[in-house]
Parts: sequence; structure tokens; C-alpha cells
Amino acid sequence: MAFNSIGIIGLGLIGGSFARAFCDRGLCVYGLDECASTLAEAAGADIFSALTDDMDQLLALKPELIYICVPVEATKSVLKTLAEKGVKTPVTDGASTKSTVCALAHGLGLNFCGGHPIAGREVSGFSSSTDGLFDGAVHVLTPVADGFPTDDLKALHEVIGMRVTVMTADRHDLVFGAISHLPHVTAFSLVEAVNKACPEAFSYTGGGFKDFTRIAASNPRMWTDIFLDNDKTVIELIDTYIDFLKTWREDITAKDEKKIYKRIEDASSIRRSIK
Amino acid sequence: MAFNSIGIIGLGLIGGSFARAFCDRGLCVYGLDECASTLAEAAGADIFSALTDDMDQLLALKPELIYICVPVEATKSVLKTLAEKGVKTPVTDGASTKSTVCALAHGLGLNFCGGHPIAGREVSGFSSSTDGLFDGAVHVLTPVADGFPTDDLKALHEVIGMRVTVMTADRHDLVFGAISHLPHVTAFSLVEAVNKACPEAFSYTGGGFKDFTRIAASNPRMWTDIFLDNDKTVIELIDTYIDFLKTWREDITAKDEKKIYKRIEDASSIRRSIK
Repeated sequence: MAFNSIGIIGLGLIGGSFARAFCDRGLCVYGLDECASTLAEAAGADIFSALTDDMDQLLALKPELIYICVPVEATKSVLKTLAEKGVKTPVTDGASTKSTVCALAHGLGLNFCGGHPIAGREVSGFSSSTDGLFDGAVHVLTPVADGFPTDDLKALHEVIGMRVTVMTADRHDLVFGAISHLPHVTAFSLVEAVNKACPEAFSYTGGGFKDFTRIAASNPRMWTDIFLDNDKTVIELIDTYIDFLKTWREDITAKDEKKIYKRIEDASSIRRSIK
Repeated sequence: MAFNSIGIIGLGLIGGSFARAFCDRGLCVYGLDECASTLAEAAGADIFSALTDDMDQLLALKPELIYICVPVEATKSVLKTLAEKGVKTPVTDGASTKSTVCALAHGLGLNFCGGHPIAGREVSGFSSSTDGLFDGAVHVLTPVADGFPTDDLKALHEVIGMRVTVMTADRHDLVFGAISHLPHVTAFSLVEAVNKACPEAFSYTGGGFKDFTRIAASNPRMWTDIFLDNDKTVIELIDTYIDFLKTWREDITAKDEKKIYKRIEDASSIRRSIK
């Protein structure tokens, strides 16, 4: 089977951008959002075959795929609602953490496959959505249900220019804990530490500091959910990170020039090797 | 007095870029470098009125300003040499830390004013130098000697498009410890922590992680010197930073949703306020 019609739940930056990209490829897109002003904006965009704030109305349209595009905690509520309504349609999501979402969907017996589009901006809302947000980006799939048409879901994302990769939900949460969740904690902490140690220093920030802390200007709702959902992995990563900081403290205290030089050389070489 | 001729010691990215910018403004520029291939490259650039690898030859040209453009430890050696030779000419430098350099110059009785151009790239060497590197950038001056013509040094940098600000050397090292040295330690540690926890995660890095760790691809010689020279301030800042990381660990462990949300909101708001 292929997905000819898609019901998107949540019309923010991610849901709106998927809707635009799918519509561009000629697919029939339905949209659901709780917010009246978002629905009004979405209506103006001339993308959706139907728009509603009511789940029963969306389900009555019989979309061939249900795509949940809301933050992690809200995603879990939607999964419970879909299970209560006995939905058998394939369901996927775009939330940033996968282990608890996939475990819940599995426990509820939904025909589910987790997903995470590795794209985003520091802006949010339907008004920021674009049809090219996912072009060239990676989409991670974390399969759950045996009968789920994973190949079709893969093809759906490839057709909008994404590079699809499949991994377990736990692996996903470690990988993105390391390269996304931990960096956010470090950026928030850095802004807090500078603000405490020398707030006037912010007047002298150049491009380096601004690049480095850009991710600190993130959406609080989304990131609170991520930290609480991937808590165990994030805590382990913070511990590993603090251990390395402590050894920097030790090496600088000991004025261990050779070791400091070697560590910078190694870190620099790893960083340069990132494509 | 104004500076009609400038003797630049060290023709790397910084010294070479100053030479190009000063030459563009019609000033007479002399260059000294220990490295024969750098001197050959510099000769080909048609900027310098004279080039040498010998300090006595440079001093015999009687430049009205001596501009030291080498890493911190090498800067200290040059200061000692200049003092031994009884140099009375105004001397300035472009090294990234100022407290120990200024204290040394003061102790040696040199006619010195510290300086730090807030510009740089992740490349180095004369071949990477450009006449526009400092255009629009901040130049920090940290005065030492009472008789030094600070206003002339200010004017010299303004004429090449820099915005000059004056502060004490200790203040400089705290400000740049906070917004430059600490972020480098955190970036090196982040690369090390990810490399330990989940090296394959580097394959999934998007723009955010790359921006965040760009400064980890830094020059080991320069950064070893900076950490060793500004050691006490850097250690204090690492401690403050670790304290904040630990409270993140606590808040996530306690699943303190309200506090986490508030901290993200506050850090995000501070970051957004940076111009």
C-alpha cells in the first residue's frame, strides 16, 4: 500500500511543513489543530483538503496515514485517544524522543512506527512552516508494530527529499541525547554561567559565542518535554560530560601543557572529521 | 604623535591581516618572522617596506610602533628581548590573554599597551590573512604604561574600521574567559563526551551540533597557551559552569517540570537579547 491521504495532527512548524511538502507531491492532506487561529492560518494556505479541531471528524475522513506532529507529552495523549477509538490505521509521529512514545504505542496495540525528522528552526508555528524544511534532511524511523508498512513510510519521506535511516528507539534516544539533548543542556548552562560570572561579557560576544549558544534560544515547551522524557540518558550524558570537564580542570590546574595540547589536537581533529 | 611606521612581529593570520590593513591606509609596515617560508610568502604580497628574521634589523628601521602578533607565551619572550635591548618605542600586542602579558611588560618597564583584536578564523598563517579581517570588529586595549600614546593606538585601529574599547587587563581576562575561553573548554569536552558515549552519533550531526562545536576545531598551540595563561579565571568559570550542570541534573532527576521550563525560558530570553 502507499499513502494517498494523510491526516496531520498538530499544524506547527513540523506539521505545517510536512503538509506543504506532501501537498506539493500531490498527496491529499487533512489537518487537525486545537487552536482556532492556527486553523484559520492553515485554511489560508490552500493546502488542506479538510481542516478540523475534532478527532472524530479527522478519523471520519479515513486518512491512510495519521501523522502526529506535536511535542512528546502531547503525542502520548494523542496515542491514548487513538487507541481508545480503536484506530487500526497506520500511525507515525515526529517527536524528538522515541523510547517512551514507542513503548506506549506498542502497549496500546497501535499500528505504529516512530519517526523523527532531523530538521527544525528556532522559530515555531504554522506561520514559520515551509515546503523545503525537510529537503535533504535525515528522517529517523523507529519501527514498533510488526505489520506496519515501514517501506511505504520510508518512500513517503524519500519522495519529499529526505534521507531515511532506521534504528531502535533506544538507540535513537542515545544518539540524539548525545548530539542534541546534551548540547542543549550545555548551551543553557553556559548562558547561565556567563550570566552569573560576568553578565556584561554578553556585550562583547562575537560570532563564535553566538553560533555556540544559538541552540540556547529554544522552545521551552518542546525542550522541557525532551529532558523529562529522555531523562535517564540525558543524566548519564551530563555525568560523562562533567567527568571530562573535571579532567580539564585538573589538567589546567596541573599546568599539564603536553596533555592539554594533545586533548585540543584530538578534539579538533574529531570535530574537523564531521562532514 | 601618530604612528607612521609599524614593525610587526609575527606574520600569521593576525599579524598578516594587520599588515595588509595598515598598508591599505598608506602606513609603512615592516615585518619580522622566524620562518623563512612565511617571509617568502610575505615578500610576494608586496605590502612590507622591509622583511627580516632578525630583531636588531627590525629595530634598526626605527618603527614608531612595535606590534607583537604571536601566541601568548611567545609574546612574553619577545617582551623580554625588547627590554634587554632597551627599547623605548611604544609596543603593543594582539594576544588573547592580557593579565600576565601586561604585568610582565610593566615589570620590564616597557612603554607598553596591551591589545586584543576580537577577530579570528579557524584557519591560520599568513596565507589566510586578509585586509578585511578586522573591519567592524572590536579591539580591546588594556593600558599599562602611563606615558603610552593610547589615543594614537586607538586612532590607528579606528582608521582600519575597528571599534576600540578600553578596560583593565584583569577585566579583559574575566570577560573573555567567560565568552571565549570557557566556551572552548565546553566545546572540547562535548566532543570528548560524545566520542566516548556514542561515537557513531557524529554521523547524525546536523547544523546545530556543527555550529555548536565549530570552535572545537581550534589551534592547539594558541589554546594551550590561553588556558595556561588565564588558568585561575578559567578554573573558576569551569567550577561555576559545573555547578549549573549539576542543578540541571538535579532538576531533571526530580522531574521538576516548572523549574526546567522556567530555566529554558530564561536562558532562551538572555540568548535572544544578545545583539
